[in-house]
Amino acid sequence: MRMAHTMIRVRDLDASIGFYCGFLGLKEVRRGTIGDEATLVFLTDEREGYHLELTYNHDGRDYQLGSQFGHLAFHVDELAPVVAEIERRGWWFRRSKPESRSSYVFVRDPDGYDVEILEKVGI
Amino acid sequence: MRMAHTMIRVRDLDASIGFYCGFLGLKEVRRGTIGDEATLVFLTDEREGYHLELTYNHDGRDYQLGSQFGHLAFHVDELAPVVAEIERRGWWFRRSKPESRSSYVFVRDPDGYDVEILEKVGI
Repeated sequence: MRMAHTMIRVRDLDASIGFYCGFLGLKEVRRGTIGDEATLVFLTDEREGYHLELTYNHDGRDYQLGSQFGHLAFHVDELAPVVAEIERRGWWFRRSKPESRSSYVFVRDPDGYDVEILEKVGI
Repeated sequence: MRMAHTMIRVRDLDASIGFYCGFLGLKEVRRGTIGDEATLVFLTDEREGYHLELTYNHDGRDYQLGSQFGHLAFHVDELAPVVAEIERRGWWFRRSKPESRSSYVFVRDPDGYDVEILEKVGI
């Protein structure tokens, strides 16, 4: 058994790809459609071991994010340039406290999903 | 940048570990606490390249799943024994149609998250 992907529904594919590829550095590796209903886009990192699937439904439906789902997390080698880029873009963010064991920042993707960016290399 | 983990909030840690480790075959690699507030459990597969983080808040709060988050997906070499096990347990499930390009089954974890189990080795 292998972990394969996490699927999230999104409202604006270009905005999501701008966030996950343009800002975070994922790459698109596959795109498909389910008839006229939906577009599915698979993103991954340079290891290509796990994927993020974006589902865009064409009917313009809206969604409720709810309070149950947690977040998606990403590792970077250096957090400081990421925080500088977030500040340059004027996004909301929440940083780890100086006394925290790990150094991270939380931002929100275009659909409001919480995204954690971690400097510490580990889990 | 590397994909690190997906975090989901859960209501019953033993039930979630029974599902993700006992049924799906993930293994627990780290467990920690945030003071008295929460227990965090990290699960992974044999490649250890990506993790599923379970967050259990101790205050007994409940959550709304919402309609926005999609699903978690896992690959297996053979789907038939997985479906047989799901039937043995009497769980709800939804199988791919015979004409579908990939062979999969959807089940729900103890908190209602959709979980896709795919036989096709790919994304």
